[in-house]
Amino acid sequence: MKTLQPASAPVAEVCCTPVTQEAISAEEAQRFAQLLKAVAEPTRLRLVSLIAAQDNKEACVCDLTEPVGLGQPTVSHHLKILVDAGILHREKRGVWAYYSIVPGALERAAAVLSPR
Amino acid sequence: MKTLQPASAPVAEVCCTPVTQEAISAEEAQRFAQLLKAVAEPTRLRLVSLIAAQDNKEACVCDLTEPVGLGQPTVSHHLKILVDAGILHREKRGVWAYYSIVPGALERAAAVLSPR
Repeated sequence: MKTLQPASAPVAEVCCTPVTQEAISAEEAQRFAQLLKAVAEPTRLRLVSLIAAQDNKEACVCDLTEPVGLGQPTVSHHLKILVDAGILHREKRGVWAYYSIVPGALERAAAVLSPR
Repeated sequence: MKTLQPASAPVAEVCCTPVTQEAISAEEAQRFAQLLKAVAEPTRLRLVSLIAAQDNKEACVCDLTEPVGLGQPTVSHHLKILVDAGILHREKRGVWAYYSIVPGALERAAAVLSPR
């Protein structure tokens, strides 16, 4: 079993032995599930997709509420889950925070399920 | 938007435009989330991993209860969710049902998150 990273490390940074490569431990399964749960939710998948579809690959909450049809507190809640999981990067600029996809994060989540 | 498959088609068979390729619709997001939720659970990840680690790449419930430390009804419940999502194939032989990973299913789930 691998050494666990500090609890503060986003889970997307510490993943992933592919599940089909060897029988994973209970601890690894917990960590992988935490990462996949962050994206296994329709609104969060749409938010990731909408951010990726922006010309400059970043968006503020103000860009996202209308396309998903939800209020700012709900959208901010979903964005926080994605930031905490290490999927999104958040950068405060002036009044708004801008969200972008952490390079490699989705690839690492995908690698849990299927090796490259 | 693509034509939706009949509701009876396992979700792993009808996925996936990668979320980063274009802004996905609410319907696609629902379908993708359903597929990812099937695997975004620690016990189910371990079951998939244990089945993949078997010499003949299949296992019955009798092989799986002890390694995950759960009773047969609970393990059968998790296996059913994976079968319904199109991740596992179930084949009854004699007293036991044997479970194997549907070829390509995990790769299709991974492809939602990251194109090949």
